Amino acid sequence: MTQSGDECGRVPDPVVERLSVYSRVLTVMLREGAITISSADLSERTGFSATQIRRDLAFFGQFGTPGVGYDVWRLHARLERILGVDIERRVVIVGAGNLGTALIGYTGFREHNFRIVAAFDIAPGRVGVTTQQGVRIHHVADLGRIVADEKAEIAVLAVPVAAAQPALDVVVKAGLRAVLNFAPTQLAVPPGVRLRNVDLSVEMGALSFYLGQDS
Amino acid sequence: MTQSGDECGRVPDPVVERLSVYSRVLTVMLREGAITISSADLSERTGFSATQIRRDLAFFGQFGTPGVGYDVWRLHARLERILGVDIERRVVIVGAGNLGTALIGYTGFREHNFRIVAAFDIAPGRVGVTTQQGVRIHHVADLGRIVADEKAEIAVLAVPVAAAQPALDVVVKAGLRAVLNFAPTQLAVPPGVRLRNVDLSVEMGALSFYLGQDS
Repeated sequence: MTQSGDECGRVPDPVVERLSVYSRVLTVMLREGAITISSADLSERTGFSATQIRRDLAFFGQFGTPGVGYDVWRLHARLERILGVDIERRVVIVGAGNLGTALIGYTGFREHNFRIVAAFDIAPGRVGVTTQQGVRIHHVADLGRIVADEKAEIAVLAVPVAAAQPALDVVVKAGLRAVLNFAPTQLAVPPGVRLRNVDLSVEMGALSFYLGQDS
Repeated sequence: MTQSGDECGRVPDPVVERLSVYSRVLTVMLREGAITISSADLSERTGFSATQIRRDLAFFGQFGTPGVGYDVWRLHARLERILGVDIERRVVIVGAGNLGTALIGYTGFREHNFRIVAAFDIAPGRVGVTTQQGVRIHHVADLGRIVADEKAEIAVLAVPVAAAQPALDVVVKAGLRAVLNFAPTQLAVPPGVRLRNVDLSVEMGALSFYLGQDS
């Protein structure tokens, strides 16, 4: 879920999340050569109800043709524009340990227009290294300058719990307003900053539910 | 989202996901010493509407007291039981590269009753190693035997895209029925198996939306 330091929020977070899920599903369908998709198909592929999907898309002025459905290419293009992923987004990774290194190599980012332009750490053995993907690891002390030079917009925090709040403070000071946090802890978010927490125990909790159901 | 190889599904996936989010929020509130919580408070902390939350909880027989709300301790205990995370769940990690190693060290799993009992790889430099958390890395060829010995229930796939389907096939053959997949690819899921895909580009897409809104 997304935390924000202010009260604004014209579009509820869960709607934004669903739009991002729809967009990902449509990317796969485009590759499969699909031309149209009904809200019932989208429901089957996402688990969200067809009513919910129609309501979400109508909110953004997208209306399917009755009996035909949505044009996959047009709906995908529209969603990418709404989400702002039709243009390249420049990303920095804070923390170049195992998780940070894994994220630098994550092919799903580049495929969706997210470009990792720099990584940061404080460990002497890591700072100064260039990864096999060509991403240079800098000292956190240089973050402000490099974020400005590289015109980065998104920070990903891949640091231990104890370092997460200081890391958030550093990226906020550098002017970044969108942050994805992997550390399993609650962070204090200043006004105007959007923080999304990736909580892997939520994913595991949902899986665990099915273990109980199926047995 | 969760894929399943069969048509069952008494409770829709998005409901299960929301229950897992509520449970995580209540864990934090318990630590903060909260006694009661209203659906409006839960709405503010999760972004889901109060109506949605009341409907989800009523589905499982949980009714708040009007004007008071839900008892945090009781609701948390009930959700943990529904999700099956009130008992320890034993987990194996397939792939002991950067991501797998990061997951072995992820404190959020142990805190929520998920215990990593073994990891698997094929690289000679990794097999036979015991991590600093005391998790032994075995060869994938031994997965079936070790899953049985360790009574593992959940597999986490932390392998490259090209290895994801073979890895899924191996864990399914070993009898595992709940799988969390980090590889950004679509996998073919046999009947009776629940697969959750962690798609980090969905998270980034949602963040990207706010960049457009705030500027």
